[in-house]
Amino acid sequence: MLNLQVETPDRWLNQVDEDLDQVLLDHAHCELSAARTALNLMVAYVLYEPVTIEMTRIINEELDHFHQVLEQLNRLDIDFKRQQPGHYGKRLNALVRNEEPMRGVDRLLVAALIEARSCERFCLLRDHVSDPELADFYGSLFESEAGHYATYVQLAKDFMPSDVVDQRLDELAKEEAEIVLEGYPRARMHS
Amino acid sequence: MLNLQVETPDRWLNQVDEDLDQVLLDHAHCELSAARTALNLMVAYVLYEPVTIEMTRIINEELDHFHQVLEQLNRLDIDFKRQQPGHYGKRLNALVRNEEPMRGVDRLLVAALIEARSCERFCLLRDHVSDPELADFYGSLFESEAGHYATYVQLAKDFMPSDVVDQRLDELAKEEAEIVLEGYPRARMHS
Repeated sequence: MLNLQVETPDRWLNQVDEDLDQVLLDHAHCELSAARTALNLMVAYVLYEPVTIEMTRIINEELDHFHQVLEQLNRLDIDFKRQQPGHYGKRLNALVRNEEPMRGVDRLLVAALIEARSCERFCLLRDHVSDPELADFYGSLFESEAGHYATYVQLAKDFMPSDVVDQRLDELAKEEAEIVLEGYPRARMHS
Repeated sequence: MLNLQVETPDRWLNQVDEDLDQVLLDHAHCELSAARTALNLMVAYVLYEPVTIEMTRIINEELDHFHQVLEQLNRLDIDFKRQQPGHYGKRLNALVRNEEPMRGVDRLLVAALIEARSCERFCLLRDHVSDPELADFYGSLFESEAGHYATYVQLAKDFMPSDVVDQRLDELAKEEAEIVLEGYPRARMHS
């Protein structure tokens, strides 16, 4: 359903076990970054009503998730602080083409893939973390992220024909899989 | 209450009469820009919990207003399109100092003054426009913008002492008054 071309390697759950705090901290920043991506898309494609409607919903949800992650950090006595992000988002965004409408399609599909990978990892966290409240929290986020993935792909299909979008999604998902397999030395949500 | 140092000149209502469509169009873009300002402030000062709480609320409200303006545009058969913004926001933002915590204070106070001027003008529009539904709409926005003004000023007082903030607000309000008196040749929300 999520079109991911590779499952998260076990290495990532080892990183989670070694440094859960860093993953949770990154998660908070990721939610804010997701809100920002959605608002940037809304500004860029403000004349397309479906984009403005869906981005408004996504921004509100991501901000709500951000505050929910802060509550978990607070409950677990983890100081919320700044953190060097991983390279995942940057590497994916570098694949976005410059010319419209391909640019719009790529921006939406990169956002879709980030949501899809988050969704897969929230599911892994739900089944892996020992703290039951944290496990429930990740279970509660799963559905929302899957919905965001579907929304971004659907919006991309307003920009270009469905088969063209599916083919590009496949290409970008291959690149995403390579970035995931390569990994990142520090524990992050998408390392 | 709003600390504005000059009332909107009559010239502005003449611009409104001559080109209401352009003012309404600008209003839609201003709401989105206000959401963006709030999200940028949230990202910049993400470690200050009161900022993240208040900015989340303001972003939600500004996006809601954006959609309400689109509904008005639609009702009045005005095509929503891109538009060259006035110089008001740019001129005010140029006054923001570079060093923290002055930078944070200035960013918050500039946002406060933009809300205050919007608030004053929504009140003028409520009493001036002939379309009763549009007049009601501007009446309904008035209170919310006044609340945003107060929130931004209050947050600035978390960054620096209250009397220092009040003095800077006074300085910035003087500059804002000059920009307003100077005017802008095209009809805009802050022309």
